[in-house]
Amino acid sequence: MSVNIAIIGSGVVGSAFIKQLKNIKFPINLNVVYLAKNSQEALYSSDYQPVDLATYETAPTKATLSLPELAKFLKSGAYPPILVDNTSSPQLAAYYPEFIKQGVSIATPNKKAFSSDLKTWEEIFSNSSAPGGGLVYHEATVGAALPIIGPLNDLVLTGDKIKKIEGILSGSLSYIFNSLSTSEPSTTKFSDVVNVAKELGFLEPDPRDDLNGMDFARKVTILARIAGFQVESPSSFPVDSLVPKELEACATGAEFLEKLPQYDADFQKRKDEALAEGKVLRYVGQVDMDNKTLSVGIAKYSFDHPFSSLKGSDNVISITTERYTNPLIIQGAGAGADITAHGVLADALKIAQRIAK
Amino acid sequence: MSVNIAIIGSGVVGSAFIKQLKNIKFPINLNVVYLAKNSQEALYSSDYQPVDLATYETAPTKATLSLPELAKFLKSGAYPPILVDNTSSPQLAAYYPEFIKQGVSIATPNKKAFSSDLKTWEEIFSNSSAPGGGLVYHEATVGAALPIIGPLNDLVLTGDKIKKIEGILSGSLSYIFNSLSTSEPSTTKFSDVVNVAKELGFLEPDPRDDLNGMDFARKVTILARIAGFQVESPSSFPVDSLVPKELEACATGAEFLEKLPQYDADFQKRKDEALAEGKVLRYVGQVDMDNKTLSVGIAKYSFDHPFSSLKGSDNVISITTERYTNPLIIQGAGAGADITAHGVLADALKIAQRIAK
Repeated sequence: MSVNIAIIGSGVVGSAFIKQLKNIKFPINLNVVYLAKNSQEALYSSDYQPVDLATYETAPTKATLSLPELAKFLKSGAYPPILVDNTSSPQLAAYYPEFIKQGVSIATPNKKAFSSDLKTWEEIFSNSSAPGGGLVYHEATVGAALPIIGPLNDLVLTGDKIKKIEGILSGSLSYIFNSLSTSEPSTTKFSDVVNVAKELGFLEPDPRDDLNGMDFARKVTILARIAGFQVESPSSFPVDSLVPKELEACATGAEFLEKLPQYDADFQKRKDEALAEGKVLRYVGQVDMDNKTLSVGIAKYSFDHPFSSLKGSDNVISITTERYTNPLIIQGAGAGADITAHGVLADALKIAQRIAK
Repeated sequence: MSVNIAIIGSGVVGSAFIKQLKNIKFPINLNVVYLAKNSQEALYSSDYQPVDLATYETAPTKATLSLPELAKFLKSGAYPPILVDNTSSPQLAAYYPEFIKQGVSIATPNKKAFSSDLKTWEEIFSNSSAPGGGLVYHEATVGAALPIIGPLNDLVLTGDKIKKIEGILSGSLSYIFNSLSTSEPSTTKFSDVVNVAKELGFLEPDPRDDLNGMDFARKVTILARIAGFQVESPSSFPVDSLVPKELEACATGAEFLEKLPQYDADFQKRKDEALAEGKVLRYVGQVDMDNKTLSVGIAKYSFDHPFSSLKGSDNVISITTERYTNPLIIQGAGAGADITAHGVLADALKIAQRIAK
């Protein structure tokens, strides 16, 4: 039993994925027939000889195939193909519907295809359901390898009704609020915590790319769609950006960080008000299926709520359904190369178990 | 694409399973070719006509097939067979290795086969890996439908190392300790809480069957084995029974409940001592992979620990690994007919996706 695998990307997640793949024992042959190290360089041979994962870093490369060429190459192999997209490329994501239509299955942590316009989402899953369509597994698009997408799909498939989804799904924003707002009074400054988060590598080069909440909104969009809420796009619902209006125009991330302390007093006031109510501030996404509303922003939680005792940069999600009247809660690291890679690898193996020949 | 399904059991979980199965939309035909309502009565026809799930409760029945006859019947059908065991029968569980060897896949919440002697466990999984062997999915054996077994298998398969597993995996014992021991001083009596748990239907007819911790020990055995710890049996490690030695000899559950108040002072003392340390008591299972030890019994947790804020009869599990240095935590209802049934159904659907023809 075998499958052919194409891996796109050998960055932080991509190289962790390759390392794990190289070391696992699995009863199905996982032939890596194509490995694109970046947008220019790839390893593959026209006779589908597996790429040697022990030497890929230094082996001579060829020019990458175009996406239509890659689809054709995978389709023409002797074994069912899996595309592992370890990039965050919107171009590659836009081509998913076509890959799937041509029978290429996909495992990926790339959120783009699932959180853009609703049409792409619908195309992906209708092409996947059509005869000969490829499978799609994307557990690592939300909370890295935390078991969220799979269990949510299982709930929906077996006839449960999702009532509410609430979560802290950004490692950087989790860290910032867990540090900023605690059950003890503190004068910890928002700008200081943002700087520490940046030093720890939790933030994008321009911190505004995390602080504007848009990446978080993409994850909420994906969860809502699985729950049966046809969200048009991640910009079709309110997202409470942490970037002060006046700082949106800053030319650089550095300039933004320099001016951020001007807003520390606002945050101090908000957290003091919460504390007076016996609560802490958290940056959360919420999907309310009964009222058909979505939001991303700051909310308050009492000290004994699971979100209040969150540690470090952990993610947490709470799913309330007809069956789970007390919510189902899943918590743990929601980022990191090894963890994201194993989420993708576990998906690729599940696909292999279904399609191998 | 089709599979043949045999359902054994139409009790609380079994009938919830049948109801869910009847209502789902799924792209694979799920032909229920055999339905054993109990150990005597079954519905099936020798030409594999699907059983009508709308009328099974009142339809005329035949005598059940013996297990060898059932294996032969399933093996001889036109489609790959799945056995759904919704009983807690040890006899049926003992036959799993043979079913699997003959190519019958199994989805079940029945813990017996996975938590008895190590030989049975090894036989099940070696028969499953052998050519032509059936698949085995048993998510609902621990924590009902909570995503535990699947994610734990994924961690192991992708090369993570499990370091520690800790959990509250009994709904009744969760309820008893969540009520008994809180962060506020209380004089709530152990025997009163046990009586309330019994009235709420959380306890077996003889409460000692829950309070002795043996059912819990079976779940810990399963988790440890998945993590790679070859536990001989659920009685090969220390289990701290909550049944006082002197009450083991009581002839009935009623007599036991009558005498239980004599021990309330002991429990009060233990919880007062914990409270003085800023802790609460919880009944937990622990698997320490570094030191290769297992245990089930009372442990103390500080107020801000996730186990301390558990509600009602919820289960919770905490898994620490090389990758998850902060533990992966999964929490929610770990019992109930609908929840258990959907855990089994989701497994049956995963099997169908892999074997349907």
